Amino acid sequence: MATLLKNTDTESAIEELGALLGDRLSTSPAVCEHHATGETYHAPRPPDAVVFPETTEEVARIVRICAAHGVPMVPYGVGTSVEGNVCALEGGVTLDMGQMNNVLRVSQEDLDVTVQAGVTRKQLNTYLRDTGLFFPIDPGADATLGGMTATRASGTNAVRYGTLKENVLGLTVVLPDGQVITTGGRARKSAAGYDLTRLFVGSEGTLGVMTEITLKLYGIPEAISAAVCSFPSLEAAVNTVILTIQSGIPIARVELLDDIQMDACNKFSKLDFAPKDTLFFEFHGTEQGVAEQVEQVREIVHEFGGSDFRWATKAEDRNALWQARHDVYYACLALQPGKTGWATDVCVPISRLADCLIETKEELDASPLLAPIVGHVGDGNFHVCFLVDPDDPAEMAEAKRLNERMIDRALAMGGTSTGEHGIGCGKLDYLEAEHGAGAVELMRTLKRTVDPQNLMNPGKVVVV
Amino acid sequence: MATLLKNTDTESAIEELGALLGDRLSTSPAVCEHHATGETYHAPRPPDAVVFPETTEEVARIVRICAAHGVPMVPYGVGTSVEGNVCALEGGVTLDMGQMNNVLRVSQEDLDVTVQAGVTRKQLNTYLRDTGLFFPIDPGADATLGGMTATRASGTNAVRYGTLKENVLGLTVVLPDGQVITTGGRARKSAAGYDLTRLFVGSEGTLGVMTEITLKLYGIPEAISAAVCSFPSLEAAVNTVILTIQSGIPIARVELLDDIQMDACNKFSKLDFAPKDTLFFEFHGTEQGVAEQVEQVREIVHEFGGSDFRWATKAEDRNALWQARHDVYYACLALQPGKTGWATDVCVPISRLADCLIETKEELDASPLLAPIVGHVGDGNFHVCFLVDPDDPAEMAEAKRLNERMIDRALAMGGTSTGEHGIGCGKLDYLEAEHGAGAVELMRTLKRTVDPQNLMNPGKVVVV
Repeated sequence: MATLLKNTDTESAIEELGALLGDRLSTSPAVCEHHATGETYHAPRPPDAVVFPETTEEVARIVRICAAHGVPMVPYGVGTSVEGNVCALEGGVTLDMGQMNNVLRVSQEDLDVTVQAGVTRKQLNTYLRDTGLFFPIDPGADATLGGMTATRASGTNAVRYGTLKENVLGLTVVLPDGQVITTGGRARKSAAGYDLTRLFVGSEGTLGVMTEITLKLYGIPEAISAAVCSFPSLEAAVNTVILTIQSGIPIARVELLDDIQMDACNKFSKLDFAPKDTLFFEFHGTEQGVAEQVEQVREIVHEFGGSDFRWATKAEDRNALWQARHDVYYACLALQPGKTGWATDVCVPISRLADCLIETKEELDASPLLAPIVGHVGDGNFHVCFLVDPDDPAEMAEAKRLNERMIDRALAMGGTSTGEHGIGCGKLDYLEAEHGAGAVELMRTLKRTVDPQNLMNPGKVVVV
Repeated sequence: MATLLKNTDTESAIEELGALLGDRLSTSPAVCEHHATGETYHAPRPPDAVVFPETTEEVARIVRICAAHGVPMVPYGVGTSVEGNVCALEGGVTLDMGQMNNVLRVSQEDLDVTVQAGVTRKQLNTYLRDTGLFFPIDPGADATLGGMTATRASGTNAVRYGTLKENVLGLTVVLPDGQVITTGGRARKSAAGYDLTRLFVGSEGTLGVMTEITLKLYGIPEAISAAVCSFPSLEAAVNTVILTIQSGIPIARVELLDDIQMDACNKFSKLDFAPKDTLFFEFHGTEQGVAEQVEQVREIVHEFGGSDFRWATKAEDRNALWQARHDVYYACLALQPGKTGWATDVCVPISRLADCLIETKEELDASPLLAPIVGHVGDGNFHVCFLVDPDDPAEMAEAKRLNERMIDRALAMGGTSTGEHGIGCGKLDYLEAEHGAGAVELMRTLKRTVDPQNLMNPGKVVVV
């Protein structure tokens, strides 16, 4: 609706952008379709044009042109988000940040790095290979660091290293009027003024375009070991995780794959694990420290009737294991070819994780939809992937029902409607139930203040 | 000036507040003077009245009354802030949160707690004594958790456990119009909407009154050891810290006291350490883990010519040691009785810490003012306490000059004008140099939006 009320002149904007960018602007239907949605079920909503900026200054000029003509803008990384976060709901111009893929500086002494927003996490870690450092946050997909910052991403390592929220030191942001600001800095802590950095982390491109990001890095641990073990029940697996976390064991990763998901992964990634409720562990530390953690976790695993550890100590075995973990979405899709995935996630306080997972699992088992469960369970975070036919209203309604039940359950347990996927346009309806009307109204007020024309990724996070 | 432009009716507000609160409102000069400033040199600016609310709802009613009458409000913990953060620059009503000092809930299973804003950190840790958990953030003073959240406080343990920014899960906030909102939640991570929690953490009471805070807790480590060693030079001490951090040793505390400060502490706290540049260390972990950390640090200490460790393994010895560390401000004051302290702090990337400290020390040595240095050096954060006579313009000018030089130096090195004290009214002049005009204007815009009447702690953080 908003489009009709605005004095939008997309044609003029595209003309001016073309003059600025030449062939780094595209209106080709194929390119626009490619940028029309992320992964999972959200209906494609192509922009009118896609631009490929190379510098912050160029982003600023693009934003000024779009702002002058009332044209909506959608910042875009590689399109791996799952809540419709990059759908161009009102058309306009999508800013594909893929050309801004330079690592600008790295400091081995300070354990930090500044990247352009289009650098992906794998690219960064490849770049860092000879430094002894790494960037741990790993949402599975090889997302851009801009996209990860925009959705407050986390993933498998967050239980040890935190999410993007804890790991961004500073940002360069182009505001909705084209002004360039920097936030934060390189000091490890600061009490100087409002935390603008955290205002943008997780804002999903609705408050401006992040063009440069300064991130914390970590020394590659002296020892890394990964292990897999299976459990007689989901409850046993989850209770193992809960006790591990409550014991303060500094585990680097602990991932749950339920029986259906493990079966899917065995088939898709050619693994031969038991098709049971399974945990993937990873331990980081000194040789001695890892040995100690392993011993502590082994005791807990046995207490809950888990199998012996199956080890992946060599780097290539570990990589194969985590690649299989990261490919769960594709493994799910392969279970029922032709179906689309509807991925959702919630996160609850760890003490409620067993209840939340088990009640969810019972409900999924009773549904005609196939819906494997995976989870970053050390954080209390888990994912369900409903396999649906988007053209079948009954299946879509069932997925919506199950998703709502899952969210209601998580909220009733003191949790959140999304641990790491973001609100996008897929979870707008649950924001008020989670935060209350007053808090959501404050979010809307912030959006209206920073982006008075409502041009930055309109229709996401909060509808104004 | 703002006061003159507002339709301020303090008298009516106080009358209504008195009717609401009875003897929990005071206009006595002694009470108002007691709430007129924090510690250090800032001139007292008493409010017109002090109120002592007991519940969030009562805070909301107080705020609505003040807002209706255009009366400024200053939230107040125990008055240990050092940048004039609680001075009532425009008079009005100070909200002393000391009566809101209940621990509302604690979860041993989830390692979290919800407290009212007036609970102090020592009170919380006493409360937690039988749970096996503790709240690690320790700025020295026995500040309230509301005050610590408001200033984004950190202190000695931040190198291991982070600052308040990383440790607040959620808040209850009374907005400047009296509306009560909750932010965040109890899930360990969330991607649901804008990070309102971080908007309030560090906002120094300028955006609303925080009344309840949900915090992360940690298991008390199996082993804790503290040790002291002295160095032949400031540079040697600092280089020890830098290498410790760069080696990724998960040290829990590492504190620098320069020769002057160590001498002051010996005298004030009746210690018998060498009056040299000194490091206080604390190691947390398993027995084995602590032993390993100690060995690694011992090697680094010897590499830089440090003395042998002097151990404080028993809890009472450790407590005496950290009490001495926390009493540095009073130890400084005792060096020149009658003088007042002007405490300042900066924080730089760790690679620049030696340069920053040594250049600062040279400049201090060349000054007629006595100014000991202490620092949470693992974070790159250090403090200087100028001993001044506030009635001597030459001394105040010299302290101002040295402070500015220190801030300029830190900013030029990629650091911040304040690592943990906040902006208050003492560091307003440096905010733009640190963040740039655009970012500061965005802060002002946020302030104007959330507090359009400019009633919440006016004149702090950003002047609108």
